[in-house]
Amino acid sequence: MTDPLQPGAAIGILGGGQLGRMLSVAAARLGFTAHIFEPGANPPAGQVAARTTTASWDDAAALAAFAESVDVITYEFENIPTATLDMLQQHRPIRPGREALRVSQDRLVEKDFLRDLGLETAPYADITTLASLEEALSRIGTPAILKTRRFGYDGKGQMRIGKPEEAADALALLAGAPAVLEGFVPFECEVSVIAARGLDGAVTCFDPGENEHRDGILRRTTVPSRLSIARRSDAVLLAGKILNALDYVGVLGVELFVTESGLLVNEIAPRVHNSGHWTQNGCAVDQFEQHIRAIAGWPLGDGQRHADVVMENLIGDDMDQLPALAGEPGVALHLYGKAEVRAGRKMGHVNRIRSRAER
Amino acid sequence: MTDPLQPGAAIGILGGGQLGRMLSVAAARLGFTAHIFEPGANPPAGQVAARTTTASWDDAAALAAFAESVDVITYEFENIPTATLDMLQQHRPIRPGREALRVSQDRLVEKDFLRDLGLETAPYADITTLASLEEALSRIGTPAILKTRRFGYDGKGQMRIGKPEEAADALALLAGAPAVLEGFVPFECEVSVIAARGLDGAVTCFDPGENEHRDGILRRTTVPSRLSIARRSDAVLLAGKILNALDYVGVLGVELFVTESGLLVNEIAPRVHNSGHWTQNGCAVDQFEQHIRAIAGWPLGDGQRHADVVMENLIGDDMDQLPALAGEPGVALHLYGKAEVRAGRKMGHVNRIRSRAER
Repeated sequence: MTDPLQPGAAIGILGGGQLGRMLSVAAARLGFTAHIFEPGANPPAGQVAARTTTASWDDAAALAAFAESVDVITYEFENIPTATLDMLQQHRPIRPGREALRVSQDRLVEKDFLRDLGLETAPYADITTLASLEEALSRIGTPAILKTRRFGYDGKGQMRIGKPEEAADALALLAGAPAVLEGFVPFECEVSVIAARGLDGAVTCFDPGENEHRDGILRRTTVPSRLSIARRSDAVLLAGKILNALDYVGVLGVELFVTESGLLVNEIAPRVHNSGHWTQNGCAVDQFEQHIRAIAGWPLGDGQRHADVVMENLIGDDMDQLPALAGEPGVALHLYGKAEVRAGRKMGHVNRIRSRAER
Repeated sequence: MTDPLQPGAAIGILGGGQLGRMLSVAAARLGFTAHIFEPGANPPAGQVAARTTTASWDDAAALAAFAESVDVITYEFENIPTATLDMLQQHRPIRPGREALRVSQDRLVEKDFLRDLGLETAPYADITTLASLEEALSRIGTPAILKTRRFGYDGKGQMRIGKPEEAADALALLAGAPAVLEGFVPFECEVSVIAARGLDGAVTCFDPGENEHRDGILRRTTVPSRLSIARRSDAVLLAGKILNALDYVGVLGVELFVTESGLLVNEIAPRVHNSGHWTQNGCAVDQFEQHIRAIAGWPLGDGQRHADVVMENLIGDDMDQLPALAGEPGVALHLYGKAEVRAGRKMGHVNRIRSRAER
């Protein structure tokens, strides 16, 4: 166990999108400076970070200089090339650690990991050939969903298979990428737990939020969720189990399906998570600060919920609602500083706050 | 009335201290970029701003380039040289406007302004000579406090006069600077109102907070204050009167003494104010965002208080308490990224939050 980082220390963040942006602000609030590493020009996070390096993930010199300039390295997304991580970790600790990335970068590895922990998932199968897909479909049934093992997010790299006859076409669309088939499970709702584990092994969870998706993208998270008290403890215990198994340091998002027979794990994300944005206006310490605290070796903060919140993403031309939202009572706006509005692009979010006393 | 600034617009901020820093974060949250102008190297605000210009207040070329790079100019402190403002306003609007600066830069002008509005202040007198000081002391009585008319803050430029015989020495210490003498008034407590006025003339106030000072520096602000409901309306009406008289745009801090006979205005600050930091954890829209909304021509946001908060400044070696504070439940930390801890220097603050439901 190393000493906690002192104010003035530098936090390196891989990725300069909105999550890196909100991590930068949280780092500053604790007296740290943020240094963003991002291949794309003018990243949103760069607008609120002390330093930004614009370089590709295979630029060894830039990676070394970046790593040497910071005290600890973290990331806003899990699909960082392995070779990049290999180079960086020669210089500075990467938190959360490599095991969390190894597991979450690959859907099959992740599902095997969860099953080995004794956690429930939807039925799934490793798909390598049309024969294995046909075999899996006959076992799992339709509809089912074929997903690339790697690099999927916000519904990308996914194909719904409605009937067994669609198997060959679906597989062809993946162009040979390794895949998993997942069965559909009837669920009452989807919730997520934003969990954190400190460098000392302490674990804490934010109140589970209830998620609604549209077109594979999160639209809305509501706290409190409709989870029963018993299910809330199940969710928190399950998240703790995952964190401990990974010897995790930082914030982790766990998406869960709530079914009649219990909770199924949909997926895990080794980072701050869109479904945890409500914490910015519902807690003394939000998920971004909680993550920075953990990777800085600080004690985890007080994530107790003090308000009811509905978080809604502003996607693409949802930005047209801005004038109305700006004047709406109880609304906290969080925009990401992205220059261009594009369909499906996350431009910001709003937290609609209701004091717990008003319920 | 001009159109509201669109996301992507740039906010110019004069001064790079903690107020500029928190204004920058608020600007980013609304999708704006911040550009800091600050003569000192490595300003705290620069760590979270998209751009920083390091140049002196009389560097005409730097001021022009700064002004041309932004859409509107604001400031974190009121003592900006008049010549600087003259140069800047040739290029871009300065909000809050010049009248607010003219009034608040000079204690005598400010007190005359308040009195002309029909507001109560402590007794005061213009001091130019020893004879005028002696005359004022005989009228106002002792103890009294001799203050420079300009450039005072956090108790600097102030001299307490306990007995008439100390008059000559006190005056000599001011070395000929124009001064005012202020009488002490017995007050129950000091409160402040953080008020805002939009470009459209709309006015809103945050709940008044109760202040405690030590050595001339604010130590603690508590909301709710002990003000009666009637006095709260008095405070809010009075703040609105000041805002309207100045045709003000932005956030203004009004410090008030609560006495048996009513409210006296101690001083006004044409900017976000230390006693409004509690709003960061008590409201959907805090004073920093409210200020940015106003100067950007946006509707004012919802500043309704949803929690009880006690704000405490971390001054100098208060920073030694950091490990304990980091682990304290209900505490939100806000550090300013200042490299060096010095006695009397504001290093950060904490907001201790209590849900309104817990009262």
